[in-house]
Amino acid sequence: MPALRADAQRNYARLLTVAVAEIAAHGADASLEQIARAAGVGSATARRHFPSRRALLEAVFRERVETLCALARELTGRADTRAALLEWLSAVTTSASTIRGLAVALNRDLAADADAAQGSCASAQLTEAGDPLVRRAVQDGAVAPGVAITDLLTLVTGIALATEHHPNPAAEADRLLGLTVAGVSPRHG
Amino acid sequence: MPALRADAQRNYARLLTVAVAEIAAHGADASLEQIARAAGVGSATARRHFPSRRALLEAVFRERVETLCALARELTGRADTRAALLEWLSAVTTSASTIRGLAVALNRDLAADADAAQGSCASAQLTEAGDPLVRRAVQDGAVAPGVAITDLLTLVTGIALATEHHPNPAAEADRLLGLTVAGVSPRHG
Repeated sequence: MPALRADAQRNYARLLTVAVAEIAAHGADASLEQIARAAGVGSATARRHFPSRRALLEAVFRERVETLCALARELTGRADTRAALLEWLSAVTTSASTIRGLAVALNRDLAADADAAQGSCASAQLTEAGDPLVRRAVQDGAVAPGVAITDLLTLVTGIALATEHHPNPAAEADRLLGLTVAGVSPRHG
Repeated sequence: MPALRADAQRNYARLLTVAVAEIAAHGADASLEQIARAAGVGSATARRHFPSRRALLEAVFRERVETLCALARELTGRADTRAALLEWLSAVTTSASTIRGLAVALNRDLAADADAAQGSCASAQLTEAGDPLVRRAVQDGAVAPGVAITDLLTLVTGIALATEHHPNPAAEADRLLGLTVAGVSPRHG
């Protein structure tokens, strides 16, 4: 993207922030006009930044995935590898249903096969970003030796899918993640 | 169902057994003719027992759910409440993708809203059947006090959904169930 003037940058950031919140709360069906209105940005200005609803959804999708990847990199430096991994998994769980909703919406809208890989690309990015967190926790003995990042992402995806129709999906997903981390019935000693 | 003559009963049982195996292996799309052929039962005989493919799918669906409920009742008497619960959860996990595939296929085929409750009816039956197993394991301290049967069924459903496209979904689902039961990162002591 070419450098934007300061107020254009502010509008772009504001539209993206409002879109993230709107999509997390109400799903990927909001129109560009609704989001522009909620952001207090004129419709023409919104269209200069995001020529279509699809362009906005793609930007939100990338923003969500990149935020999680950046968080993973930041947490990889932490001394408490268990806490670092759990904080990241909780953030992934919170975003999982939004990311999935966006991937479904983006794939539904399009004809080109190339873009159908959106979901699997996000999953590859998250796998790469989360891998060092899991390896460090395994080295510390905080996570069982056989556990891989792909296992954890599959479990988080499953929890997001299975709680989709719950009245409070984010809270329920986080509760079930806690159960999965602690173990339903751990064998002590 | 009126009492069937011995050979009719054998044909019915054989069709159902073959249909269960066929649907577990290849999904709910098999035709009644394919299943009759695999069962070595004439097409006319198959149609006397199951007038439509839908009737057969419904019978398989009921059979799967009832088998799991019967297993739960049987296991509720076991002294090792942890092993009993884990055996049942493993059986539910193995059947979960078949049951879900059937619920989707049955709901897709029909217009009547009444039948759309198929999936939620099965889930209510499994909840009732599995509840005593969980309560006994909690009483024994084998499962954390806050864990409810609905939590476990949600986790199992999530695992089944998230492993649907795996090359070997049943084995992968069972492995992830093991991880969930033991805990990804249990805190000892």
